[in-house]
Amino acid sequence: MGNPCGPLAAQVLICCALMLVVSHQVAPAPSPPAPVTRRSFTWDVEYIMWAPDCQQSVMIGINGKFPGPTITANAGDLIRVEVTNSLHTEGLVIHWHGIKQIGTPWADGTASISQCPINSGENFTYEFVADKPGTFFYHGHFGMQRAAGLYGSLIVNGMDRQKEPFAGEYNGELSMLLSDWYHENVYAQSAGLDGKDKHWQWVGEPQTILINGRGQFGCSLGITRDRRACDRRKKDALCQEGDKSERCELIRRSECGPFCEGSQCSPVVFDVEPGKTYRLRIASTTSLSALNVQIQGHKLTVVEADGNFVEPFVVDDIDIYSGESYSVLLKADQRPSSYWISVGVRGRRPKTQPALAILKYTNSKPDSWPAGMPPETPAWDNVTRSKEFTYRIKAREKTARPPTTVDRRLTMLNTQNMFKGHIKWAINHVTLSLPATPYLGAYFYGIEAIAFDSSTESPDTYDRTYDIQKPPDGQAPAAKVPTTVSDRVFKIAHGAVVDVVLQNANALEAGVSESHPWHLHGHDFWVLGYGDGVYEHGRDSKALNTESPPLRNTVVLFPHGWTVLRYVADNPGVWAFHCHIEPHLHLGMGVIFAEGMEKLRELNVPREAITCGEAKTATLPLAPAMAPPPPP
Amino acid sequence: MGNPCGPLAAQVLICCALMLVVSHQVAPAPSPPAPVTRRSFTWDVEYIMWAPDCQQSVMIGINGKFPGPTITANAGDLIRVEVTNSLHTEGLVIHWHGIKQIGTPWADGTASISQCPINSGENFTYEFVADKPGTFFYHGHFGMQRAAGLYGSLIVNGMDRQKEPFAGEYNGELSMLLSDWYHENVYAQSAGLDGKDKHWQWVGEPQTILINGRGQFGCSLGITRDRRACDRRKKDALCQEGDKSERCELIRRSECGPFCEGSQCSPVVFDVEPGKTYRLRIASTTSLSALNVQIQGHKLTVVEADGNFVEPFVVDDIDIYSGESYSVLLKADQRPSSYWISVGVRGRRPKTQPALAILKYTNSKPDSWPAGMPPETPAWDNVTRSKEFTYRIKAREKTARPPTTVDRRLTMLNTQNMFKGHIKWAINHVTLSLPATPYLGAYFYGIEAIAFDSSTESPDTYDRTYDIQKPPDGQAPAAKVPTTVSDRVFKIAHGAVVDVVLQNANALEAGVSESHPWHLHGHDFWVLGYGDGVYEHGRDSKALNTESPPLRNTVVLFPHGWTVLRYVADNPGVWAFHCHIEPHLHLGMGVIFAEGMEKLRELNVPREAITCGEAKTATLPLAPAMAPPPPP
Repeated sequence: MGNPCGPLAAQVLICCALMLVVSHQVAPAPSPPAPVTRRSFTWDVEYIMWAPDCQQSVMIGINGKFPGPTITANAGDLIRVEVTNSLHTEGLVIHWHGIKQIGTPWADGTASISQCPINSGENFTYEFVADKPGTFFYHGHFGMQRAAGLYGSLIVNGMDRQKEPFAGEYNGELSMLLSDWYHENVYAQSAGLDGKDKHWQWVGEPQTILINGRGQFGCSLGITRDRRACDRRKKDALCQEGDKSERCELIRRSECGPFCEGSQCSPVVFDVEPGKTYRLRIASTTSLSALNVQIQGHKLTVVEADGNFVEPFVVDDIDIYSGESYSVLLKADQRPSSYWISVGVRGRRPKTQPALAILKYTNSKPDSWPAGMPPETPAWDNVTRSKEFTYRIKAREKTARPPTTVDRRLTMLNTQNMFKGHIKWAINHVTLSLPATPYLGAYFYGIEAIAFDSSTESPDTYDRTYDIQKPPDGQAPAAKVPTTVSDRVFKIAHGAVVDVVLQNANALEAGVSESHPWHLHGHDFWVLGYGDGVYEHGRDSKALNTESPPLRNTVVLFPHGWTVLRYVADNPGVWAFHCHIEPHLHLGMGVIFAEGMEKLRELNVPREAITCGEAKTATLPLAPAMAPPPPP
Repeated sequence: MGNPCGPLAAQVLICCALMLVVSHQVAPAPSPPAPVTRRSFTWDVEYIMWAPDCQQSVMIGINGKFPGPTITANAGDLIRVEVTNSLHTEGLVIHWHGIKQIGTPWADGTASISQCPINSGENFTYEFVADKPGTFFYHGHFGMQRAAGLYGSLIVNGMDRQKEPFAGEYNGELSMLLSDWYHENVYAQSAGLDGKDKHWQWVGEPQTILINGRGQFGCSLGITRDRRACDRRKKDALCQEGDKSERCELIRRSECGPFCEGSQCSPVVFDVEPGKTYRLRIASTTSLSALNVQIQGHKLTVVEADGNFVEPFVVDDIDIYSGESYSVLLKADQRPSSYWISVGVRGRRPKTQPALAILKYTNSKPDSWPAGMPPETPAWDNVTRSKEFTYRIKAREKTARPPTTVDRRLTMLNTQNMFKGHIKWAINHVTLSLPATPYLGAYFYGIEAIAFDSSTESPDTYDRTYDIQKPPDGQAPAAKVPTTVSDRVFKIAHGAVVDVVLQNANALEAGVSESHPWHLHGHDFWVLGYGDGVYEHGRDSKALNTESPPLRNTVVLFPHGWTVLRYVADNPGVWAFHCHIEPHLHLGMGVIFAEGMEKLRELNVPREAITCGEAKTATLPLAPAMAPPPPP
């Protein structure tokens, strides 16, 4: 199964052409077209027993490993991934986070939205164009499969790397995919989140932060908190049973670490040559945690955010929310030695130890731990510091500017609510529940009426008497709008310019408002501004940045504040826009944009992607030979 | 979604008529037809946090509880179960174990065989006739979902209960559904079973045996092995937090038990009135364990096996294998008091404590434990004792006898094998792997060629030079047949009389051969005989019991022995025949009978049941309005 090559090849060309226009390069000669590079992968997705933090768990792995293989491509390449689902009872989909899926909305990998789950035993081929360079990743987008380990890196280089901004300023690349890991499996996590009243159980904080899929539970390398636990662990898990190598024997006798060569949880070591500069790509696919990254004794120059170059600025550390990615330039300008890389939790009272990795100069002493203590993560509740970092991100010159005329304004109140004894997150008092039939299939087959609630659209805004400083139950009677659960969508006309105001509010507990990283599928958007309190059009819109707003696909909404973004609905498809925190999305924190559906029939949607749920019977007439016999 | 009522109602009548003929009763008057009783259920299948053995786990529950609700019906009733799948990523199906599904093969609830998995968020309505009275149960039949807790009891009474055999001999009914429970989740269990070479991990023995979904891990009521563990457990789990009742306070101070009223793991108490006789229904849906059931101080009279009455015989205890069910008559003829019911492991070195329940005479002292020790389970490796019990089971007089002419003989060698580093179970050296498209759908749409390997049938027999006393690698060169993995089937002509010889052999380890309970879907079969060593037609066939062979749907194959059964292929459908041990089936221990497929088009197969896998695209032409536009 897969997409026929012909139409896609055409799309590749259109897409490449678009990309070239954006990057102000010369359009290709009309003939012959440049050959498209196809990068093909064959993936078997299966349960594996793995010890990502030195404790064995069942995880979702790809080709027998965790994390999944890194995809590296050039912009304009056609990426083809043939996925076989070898999970025994679970369906799966894979979302290519940051790829716009221009002309291939069915390849966005969002269950219930862009496609049917790939059932156990089935295979499905994703085929799409890497539409632009950037630091991306991929992950499961069905239930909480991302949190079960289904993810990996996706790096897209420029078609001509030497012409990329900053290309001359670095000598090599390093890559860091950040995630968090729970010892409780996702089935139990979701059962807890779904629980009613006193049966509700919050998943809590993750046990371990992982760097490129590796962490060390209960023992941060040299810095042991619980020596006995660590000793037990070393004996049990770090060295494969029967490995009698000198190194393993040493480990069995020693403090935490060093780790076996073959260990699944040995710390990541980034090798650098003294004096050289590196582009360090950092992406976060955490389930919950907002993170902070620091490198002992080194400054970082931020140059890319979510696949878009930004005006460079220098920092000691970066905050990164789930769904975001950055490139920073890192100069190996210190005394040749080893240095700690420390990744700690921000925004929530940290119960998870910081993850550590090692930056190692090539000519430094082998196997030595860095000297001194790892850099300390900034105070978890210092939101001002997070805002300062975020506000510094501006588009690099020559980045396309947003249109100045807006066709549609959406204001989205983010609240935490009770619904029939269940805790939910809601947007304008509506909590998202996804249908069994993917929206894309419902529109393609014209069965919206039976596939989801298409009688009305999602609400464009909220009642402004709502007091965002108070919990939902502390509202004045008029603002106490009941929460509803719905699979309604926003219908967005093709080509419309859309402004979205994300308006944060107080959660259920008084005095609490959380940060939410919102991620948009199918698009980059311009981040026009942030602010505290209630956004007021007129007053606040005047101060928005329309000169150098950064393009991104994920943006943070700060506690009790607002964020405004703008995008152009130029990519027909059904696109999710949601909080990238896995349990928040599970509890309904998202909306659906059904965009340019009037153009959908012009696309060659593969039927295997969209034939499930109501689409199995509603629209596909049996061939005469298949029809059941007439009743006797 | 569901089956139209009309055709099914007709099937109900046909089925009732068939049943009446079998039970030698008077056929109904031609008009008006007796009204069909419909028993409707609405089930929501979801993850729940539950403590079946006082330790909290995530389980698959129905309507928020474990085990699933008991279905009670009368023979001839139409059972209608509307299932909503609220698992987040898993498909599911439900098999009605013991129900023949006459005319409704799509309702047999076997994934990849009779239907597509019901995807997350979808609903599906099972509608079928309870074709005969008996002690049945239902369970998941996709991956290892049975072992995850997806099961419950299904009791079918006679249309006229007073006319049932033994009806006058008992005053009431008791019911006991037995299962076993692992603390490791099924995803990890299957990952271990799928592991290659040194990564293979056997699931091991279950932690707890459950009686009606209740067990007590680490503490058998009064008989504590580990008091400290038990104390901890009591404090943590037995009483809901905040429950300050006197009873809970007592528990917090006391030895193991008594348990809170609301506890999910308090022992089952069967109340009986002195002097009365009870029909105790016992069914086993264990994942692994063969069990033995005893009641302190009481004899048991076996009267039913798998929904078929047998010649009554009196025993001290019964052996029961996974997939089997029995009714025993139990007379409350002892001194009014409490008595232990003990359920222990047979056939495997027991590492699981026996489960205990209590038989309590109504006028005995409240809340008192039975005196003395619970009955001890017979030695696990005393196979002779198991055979003696099994061999005593004979059909009750008036049970239909098997046809004497046989149309097809199949001999099935049961071996454990290595296949490319994986441990498998194989039948005639073929290990079963199921296709993504259900066989029933493949036949219905005529796409066998692309849906599975239909080029040849499964092998009818094995090479008789194979030495069943030796492991596969100890065979003479000529008998070393390579193991293959296949989704081939046996095609069975409608109406054929089929004999199956199950031939056991040595496992991978020298001197080891296991017991396997084989279960047939869609049919009862006559058990013609058992024996040790190699079955030889001619010599052994003469000694088979064709006079009073019991009808069953599950039969045990003893170590290094053989079992012969016969059935009539009078029920068009695709039926699994497999070892009922969950990990054995997972490792390929089963075959598929595609029976009477020439009659399939006469059935009104609901399309939503069979439209997945290759059936999504192979045969359903798009309506013209849906067709993609011609290429430009």
